[in-house]
Amino acid sequence: MTDPLLELRDALRAFAAERDWDQFHSPRNLATALAVEAAELLEPFQWLTDEQSRSLPPQARVAVEEELADVLLYLIRLADKLDMDLVAAARAKIVKNAAKYPVEKSRGSSRKYDAL
Amino acid sequence: MTDPLLELRDALRAFAAERDWDQFHSPRNLATALAVEAAELLEPFQWLTDEQSRSLPPQARVAVEEELADVLLYLIRLADKLDMDLVAAARAKIVKNAAKYPVEKSRGSSRKYDAL
Amino acid sequence: MTDPLLELRDALRAFAAERDWDQFHSPRNLATALAVEAAELLEPFQWLTDEQSRSLPPQARVAVEEELADVLLYLIRLADKLDMDLVAAARAKIVKNAAKYPVEKSRGSSRKYDAL
Amino acid sequence: MTDPLLELRDALRAFAAERDWDQFHSPRNLATALAVEAAELLEPFQWLTDEQSRSLPPQARVAVEEELADVLLYLIRLADKLDMDLVAAARAKIVKNAAKYPVEKSRGSSRKYDAL
Repeated sequence: MTDPLLELRDALRAFAAERDWDQFHSPRNLATALAVEAAELLEPFQWLTDEQSRSLPPQARVAVEEELADVLLYLIRLADKLDMDLVAAARAKIVKNAAKYPVEKSRGSSRKYDAL
Repeated sequence: MTDPLLELRDALRAFAAERDWDQFHSPRNLATALAVEAAELLEPFQWLTDEQSRSLPPQARVAVEEELADVLLYLIRLADKLDMDLVAAARAKIVKNAAKYPVEKSRGSSRKYDAL
Repeated sequence: MTDPLLELRDALRAFAAERDWDQFHSPRNLATALAVEAAELLEPFQWLTDEQSRSLPPQARVAVEEELADVLLYLIRLADKLDMDLVAAARAKIVKNAAKYPVEKSRGSSRKYDAL
Repeated sequence: MTDPLLELRDALRAFAAERDWDQFHSPRNLATALAVEAAELLEPFQWLTDEQSRSLPPQARVAVEEELADVLLYLIRLADKLDMDLVAAARAKIVKNAAKYPVEKSRGSSRKYDAL
């Protein structure tokens, strides 16, 4: 099995190369595009209650799924341009979060670690 | 080999379950957290030129790597809560983008598809 | 009475001029900084219920007030650099919104105008 | 002369009251909407150079002006719901920034205050 993140990274490299788009893909531009997509992903949720957000109508689901994809694609592309390993970084962050949010102190609380 | 996205998804499920955090992880809340993290990822780039953004100083690299991880983790968690397949959605989006941005018309241009 | 938005615009012009910061204040950079500040304003709300967000603890209130100020300052500065009239644009937008959301159709509904 | 921010605040109060929208205008929802609008304002700038962002084509100018208005309107509405004085907060922030960025140390530098 190929790692799907590497497969997507390679597909994005080919996509940009064919279109001569590497010139536009500075980390700065990609980070901007990623933030714009993340806000587009938030947009359909903005007036929903938590409960409503758990059962999106079909049309909203399609839109949300596409925005999820956009965020993932820019994230992979940005990590590639910065020569960073997304999965290793995510694993390290989970370890760090486990130390910041000990089970005993954080159970059932949404407080930030510095307010626990 | 395990798919690293599934491995991270399972780690996040366990993390939330141990802390009784599923109650806070509505899609709406997760989409909000994701947008906040994406902006934190953008923050170190905001006054840099494109050129500077290509060679971050070591301290900024560490910060950026951690924010990349945060975005990925919330993205995986949100997709899980919505029962969506991130990789399938990303593959479908690449196909869609290829149709929106034909190689001949989009080569070397950063214009949006509706302005090509 | 001086218009407070013009007073703040002039204060920001002087602030930038004294520090030779106009070179950094391209509309693009200012729009980026504004989006980053708007996300920082959202950050303290991200795990709150609607109800909790209506009665912030004093410490959060101070932080939120400062982020509100940051957003306003970048907004004024961006409008100035683009030579746009914020208040005229806001008045025009209210008129436009009134046409998009007729009282009868939108009363008590959070639906978007194209779904009314 | 009426303070234009108070005039807009009152117009927004009437707009919401007529439509029975106060129920949706929790600070949390308004902060979310504000962040979404700030990202929409950033969107037209995302692939532009600094230079291009200084001379937007007419169509982009119209779109940007409308997004500026949206951000201002949500900002005024959020400050109103939180019972905060936007202008006083902005004045206080300028004073604070002047202390964080002394003219001598920050002239011609885009570095953050903690890196000066």
